[in-house]
Parts: sequence; structure tokens; C-alpha cells
Amino acid sequence: MAQKPSIPKGTRDFSPTEVAKRNYIFSTIKEVFEVYGFQPIETPSFENSSTLMGKYGEEGDRLIFKILNSGDYLNKVDDSLLTSKDSLKVTAKISEKALRYDLTVPFARYVVQHQNEIEFPFKRYQMQPVWRADRPQKGRFREFYQCDADVVGSKGLWQEVEFVQLYDAVFSKLKLVGTTIKLNNRKILAGIAEIIGAKDKLIDFTVALDKLDKIGAEGVTKEMLSKGISEEAIKKVQPLFNFNGSNQEKLNQLEALLVESEEGLKGVEDLRFVVNNIEALGLASANLDLDVTLARGLNYYTGAIYEVSAPKGVAMGSIGGGGRYDDLTGIFGLKDVSGVGISFGLDRIYLVLEELNLFDVVELPKPKVLFINFGEKEAAFCMKALTELRKNNIKSELYPDSAKMKKQMNYANRREIPFVVIVGSNEIEKNNYTLKNMQTGDQQVCSLQELLEITL
Amino acid sequence: MAQKPSIPKGTRDFSPTEVAKRNYIFSTIKEVFEVYGFQPIETPSFENSSTLMGKYGEEGDRLIFKILNSGDYLNKVDDSLLTSKDSLKVTAKISEKALRYDLTVPFARYVVQHQNEIEFPFKRYQMQPVWRADRPQKGRFREFYQCDADVVGSKGLWQEVEFVQLYDAVFSKLKLVGTTIKLNNRKILAGIAEIIGAKDKLIDFTVALDKLDKIGAEGVTKEMLSKGISEEAIKKVQPLFNFNGSNQEKLNQLEALLVESEEGLKGVEDLRFVVNNIEALGLASANLDLDVTLARGLNYYTGAIYEVSAPKGVAMGSIGGGGRYDDLTGIFGLKDVSGVGISFGLDRIYLVLEELNLFDVVELPKPKVLFINFGEKEAAFCMKALTELRKNNIKSELYPDSAKMKKQMNYANRREIPFVVIVGSNEIEKNNYTLKNMQTGDQQVCSLQELLEITL
Repeated sequence: MAQKPSIPKGTRDFSPTEVAKRNYIFSTIKEVFEVYGFQPIETPSFENSSTLMGKYGEEGDRLIFKILNSGDYLNKVDDSLLTSKDSLKVTAKISEKALRYDLTVPFARYVVQHQNEIEFPFKRYQMQPVWRADRPQKGRFREFYQCDADVVGSKGLWQEVEFVQLYDAVFSKLKLVGTTIKLNNRKILAGIAEIIGAKDKLIDFTVALDKLDKIGAEGVTKEMLSKGISEEAIKKVQPLFNFNGSNQEKLNQLEALLVESEEGLKGVEDLRFVVNNIEALGLASANLDLDVTLARGLNYYTGAIYEVSAPKGVAMGSIGGGGRYDDLTGIFGLKDVSGVGISFGLDRIYLVLEELNLFDVVELPKPKVLFINFGEKEAAFCMKALTELRKNNIKSELYPDSAKMKKQMNYANRREIPFVVIVGSNEIEKNNYTLKNMQTGDQQVCSLQELLEITL
Repeated sequence: MAQKPSIPKGTRDFSPTEVAKRNYIFSTIKEVFEVYGFQPIETPSFENSSTLMGKYGEEGDRLIFKILNSGDYLNKVDDSLLTSKDSLKVTAKISEKALRYDLTVPFARYVVQHQNEIEFPFKRYQMQPVWRADRPQKGRFREFYQCDADVVGSKGLWQEVEFVQLYDAVFSKLKLVGTTIKLNNRKILAGIAEIIGAKDKLIDFTVALDKLDKIGAEGVTKEMLSKGISEEAIKKVQPLFNFNGSNQEKLNQLEALLVESEEGLKGVEDLRFVVNNIEALGLASANLDLDVTLARGLNYYTGAIYEVSAPKGVAMGSIGGGGRYDDLTGIFGLKDVSGVGISFGLDRIYLVLEELNLFDVVELPKPKVLFINFGEKEAAFCMKALTELRKNNIKSELYPDSAKMKKQMNYANRREIPFVVIVGSNEIEKNNYTLKNMQTGDQQVCSLQELLEITL
């Protein structure tokens, strides 16, 4: 009996129109990555489990999709282990491979494995799907793409400047005006932690501070106190409750605040380098905004931290993010390789462009010309012209059957094909073609050469 | 302790150069697909197991990669089932999803699931990876790409003509001259089966006949007899032992041979339609060759059968294939949807192009210009020019650290970057740039405008 077909939850089919729109974003990002000197690599969809497990924390391990070993995989597993029903331990015995969870760990593995073939500093980009057994919800899928660019093998700050430019270049090309590139630095956060005297309270602190707009200074203070941050500490960082003005003004405020933290002041210096150079070079459509509440990937980033938000008025989480990490490849045995990278959130960018009607520049995958099929003789005559059109890269097709005229015209209308060619015995005799413009309804008789010129 | 990194057998990392070469093939095929009126779709990497299992025979089921259910997946499995160690039965309880094995079954599922959104005839293409737990060997991988184009919803023969043209167009664009598009028809094979009086011997028959060049008529006859094909039957199909000449001559021979088989004669008629129309329209670089030993996908194809072989002298299996199937979507409950499709074997095409040195047209992913980094002030000056170059889509980069000149020049040499820009205090003072052509060794001092013009 036939099954009612469906796909696993959290996954998606993409229609021709969706593929075209997605490819528009991919190719824009790709083009900018290459202009900035990044090179593409690709890694396998699945890795050895040992490569992935333990790299994303306990929660990450749980969300990794594991692939069952092939063949008689139960054969060598202990009965007692099986009946213990310890899914975690049994998994280690019956599964050796797992689907890629992100692009960063496979990239680290790639760098270490191919270190002798790579020129450092190595600027790579990678645009491939990743898989997570997460609970699906709006904007969160079990299969989705990541678009990453990273530089490894350099601690230079210029790359941190360039990533701000790169974000600006991509979003400008997509005509997405008014994005905000939020910038912070791990060293600023370390300085703040020093001042509040509690490293372990740092996340609670930034989370509370981030709510300033919503709940006011009083609310934030209340939340901080409830999280065990002392009144004295809160008093010390009071300037962060009025942290605004230009980026230069913010830098000055930070410098004053962090005057007693060596690491904090280094963070101010690093940020100042990025801010000053971006001011000198200019941005086309994005805003750069220092944001000390930005703390993503705290256990991971060691320098710059980036996050991009959509233009004001579009309700959407971050559409990109990244930062500097100082020991990416250490887990695979290659020490002291500093890296800095950013990522684009394709699916969210898609939703933002859709909401702002910014896909109108995308050429949809449909033919420009349809040849109506009136039968073998007429179709054979059409095929000669069709072959010529295609040699000239004009997207075109012959209706495959000699169906009723109305059916063929309906097909052209529904697919919004702009030109239809009609050939009957008259046209064959006179060696010409009747061309109908489907937008205006105009019809004209033309030679093959004219047909080419009009539809090109 | 650090692990020595590796990837699962049968999978591959792709370096920047390999990605560029592969993308060249992908984009060539894609361009031609679109010119021929095909539209892209994408389906998820994994499907519900019920969608895939039972569609590829027992061997296929075995080769499908299964994904372990998430969470405490053993919890509800019977102890007795577990200790029975029946891997097949246990799999059904602990795995609900599986990686895509080909693009055809997911496409059939797509057509049925989205039948109300699709305009028929539906011409779709799809270029995505598939996974098979096959034994890896030269040219056979566990993760590889398929590039398929199919038309569903039409029984017209024109599409069978167009696929010959499409193969020719792709291989011509790739400058792969002299491929052979082998053509057969399931109805011819049915006719031959009628004549030898044994449907179940058809594969043995075609396999033996295919060896004619190697083992001669006597060897073929011997093999056929050993497979239980009667002497009488072999005598009847004797003309196939001298099956050569032009396609027209072959068609005449077939017509005579199959005169008593109604289905066989229909096959001759269908083939004649394709052959005649291709002769009238011409091919750019491929040969069309009728081949009655072509029997791929016998249980599947119902009309035309295609297979493409590389130019003579290149030892490689088929680099493409396809055919007509009359009930693709029936398995998912949508009856009477005829389809015809072809596929390109990306990995093999890659190997053929490599062997024939046909990748020299591919632009490798490297910058055209490297700015040498002599320190903060010089780099800041370079960044202005770099930003302008990138605005003009010139692939360019700044060496991220102010490393030793020699190190930076070595980097440029090893990556074969054609231009290097050198800026010291002299250049800053005079507001110009020293541009070095790395091929000729020539150096010249130029303005930003000249720099743009030379490197554009």
C-alpha cells in the first residue's frame, strides 16, 4: 500500500523559487568571501564520532546525530550492556560516525590533518549544512546551512577590522541597509569580571545589563542583586548603566572604568584599533556599535566578539556572529594556532530579506521562451530554433507533448514565461515564427534571427 | 590527549583547488540544465526510513546509512529483541531516519508530497550528495554527488531527444570532445527477450553480447550456451553478432530482427525518432551510438536507456546515464506519472577532466593582489587601497601580520599571487604604491587609480 509521504521534522524541501533565493544569498556571501581573499574548503557530512564528541559540551553531545554502524552491528555487543539499556554506552559500541554539528570543529580537524599542505595564515571559507537534533521551532531547523570564514595562524588585529568590512560588504550587496554590527572583546568582559570580583557571575551580569532598555536601571540592579552580585560591585560598574554616545565616547568610558584592570585596558586598546580604522575606512550600510553585554561563546572566544542584528523594525535574533579563539586546533594536537572567524545565519537572513521584499532582484528559475507543440512536424521545426536559442544561453523549452493549445498556454501563464512561440503549417511554409509577448499580449511574425535578438 | 585526526573511510576533504574544479563542473551542468528549462529543487539529507527502505532491493537497504534515534532510544526496546541480536529488527526500533541513497526516490516523494504546488510537466534538476555504505574503492565513495535532471508528467519523445542534446551541450562546454552517448530502449530488450524465448535470460544475454569485442563471436556463443540460452535462440539473434554500421543501418537491422515482436518494433520506432531528430539537429562534440547491450536499470526503465562513456583512450566507467520510467511516483500513491531523466557522474567526470588536463580554464581561488604589511601605519595606508580594490571586486588581501618581508613574499610565491603591493614611508609621503608583478619581477610606482586599472 502506498505511504503518505512526509519528511522528518525539522527538515525542509526547497522549491525552485526557494532554491533560487537561497542561492542568491549563498553566491553573494561567496563572492565577498573570495574578494576578501578567503578560499573554499569542504569536509565530509559525517566525521568519526571521536572527532565531534566532547567538543560541544554535554548538551551538544546529546544533539549530535549518530550514524548506526553497518552490517551486523549488534554481533559483538555484550548482552549485559544491551539489557542495561544505557543508551549512551551502547551508542559508543554501535555507532562510529556522526553528522557534522558545526563547521568549526571539522575545520580545526582539517587544519591539523592537512597542516603540511596549507599556507599559513590560512583564510578559508566553508558553506555547508550542519545537523542538530534540536527541538524544531520557528527559525530553528535540524538541517541548516552555516557560512563561515576564518583566518588561522595570525594574531593580527587587521583581520578583526576586515571582518567588520566584510559583514558590511555582504549586507550592502544584499541591499539590507541598517544592520548593526555589535562588537565586544573578551578582555573587556574579563576586566568587568575583575571589577565585580566574580568571574562566575559574568554571564548573569551581562544578561541583566542587556535588559537595561526594557526594565530600567532599577530592574537591572534588582536582578543583579538576586543573582548574588554585591551592591558594592554594582556601584563600581555604574558607568555601564549609562553606556552610550559614540563608539569613541564609549571607549573613553570603558577606559576610565577599567583603569585598574590590565587585561581590560588591553581590550580597550584592541577595540580602539578596530573602531578607529573602521571610522577611517568607512562603512557602506552597516553601523558599528560597541556592546559590552555581548558575551556569546564566552568559553570559547578570547578576543574580538561579533554579532550582527537585522535592521531596526525587523524582529529577528542575530543574523551573524563570530570572534577570536586562541586555541582552536589544540584539541587535535596543533598548539598555538590563533584564529578569528565569522558566520552568516543563512536561514535568518532569508527571512529578513523576505520580510523586507529584497528578493525582487533574484532571477527565478523559469524559461524565457516556451515553444508550443502542435505535433511532430511543427515541433521538429521548433526544435531547430530552440537549439539555436539554447546555444545562445536563452532559457527555453518545448512543451513536451502536443497537448491542447489552452493547456499549453495555461502552463506558460502559470509559470509566468514571458515569451511563447507558435508554429503552425503557415510558419513552416514561410520559415518564420509567431512570437507572443505574454505580458503585453502582442504577437509578431519573425525570422529565427529576429527571434534570437528579441528573446536574448 | 590529542587525537590524531582522520576522516571516515570513503569520505573526502576537498582543498580549495579541488573545490574550485568541482564547482566548475557543477556550474557548467547547472547552467545547461537551466538553459534547457529545468528548475532546481533540494530535499533534506535524511528522509524517514520508510521513504527509502524497500526501494533499492535488499542490497540497497543494507547500504543505506541509518541514523540513530536521539535521547534514550533503548528505553522502549524489548529485552528479548535486544538479546536476539537481530540487527535488522533492532534497527527498525532504534532508527527512524536514514541518509539519502540517491536523488530519484526523494524526488518521487517530493512530487507526490507537493503535487498541488507543481506545474506538470515538471522539469526539475537536483545536485546534492548521496551516501552509501559501500566498500570504498577507486572512484567509489561513501559520500558523493549526483546531478540529476528529470521531466515528469509527459510521455513525449521529444524529451528523449533533448537529453541527448543536453549531454552533448554539457560535455562540449567542458571541452570534453568525443564522448559517446549510448542509446537503447527497454522495448528493444523486451523484443530480444521474446525472440530468445526467455525473459529471465535477458541480462545474461546482454552481458555476454557486450563482450563481443573482447572474446569474439565464438566466446560469446559459448558463454550464452553456458547460461542456458538455447542454440536455436542464439541462431535467431545472429544479426546482433554483426550489429554495426551507422545508427540508421543498425535501426534497419533491428527492424528486420524484431519484425515479429510488436513491442520490439515500437522500440525501433522510438529509437528512430530520437536518431532522426538528432541527425537533423546535429551534435557539437558527442557521438550518438545505438547499443543493444545497454541494459542498465532493467527493472526500472521502461523506454529510452542512456549511458555516456568518456572519450576513447580514457579508461573510465560510464560518466552519465538515465532513462524513462513509467511509474516512479506509484510507490507513494500517485499513479501514471511517466518520467524520463539523466544523471551526471560528477566524480568520474572530475577524474576524466583531470586526466585530459581540461581544468586549465578554472580560476583558482586565490587573491590577485597581496599587500605587504610593514607595520600599523603602512598597513593603514594599504587598507585604503585594499578597500577600493575590493569594492571593484578585485580579489585581494593584506598580509595580516607585519612579519618579515621574506616570509610575506614566500607566502605570495607559494600561493602564486600575481601582484604584490609594497608600501613604506616613501610611498605614504608621496601617496603612491609600489606594485610588483610577481611573474615578470617588474616593479612600478603607481597611484591608487593606476593600481586599480592594472589589477582589474
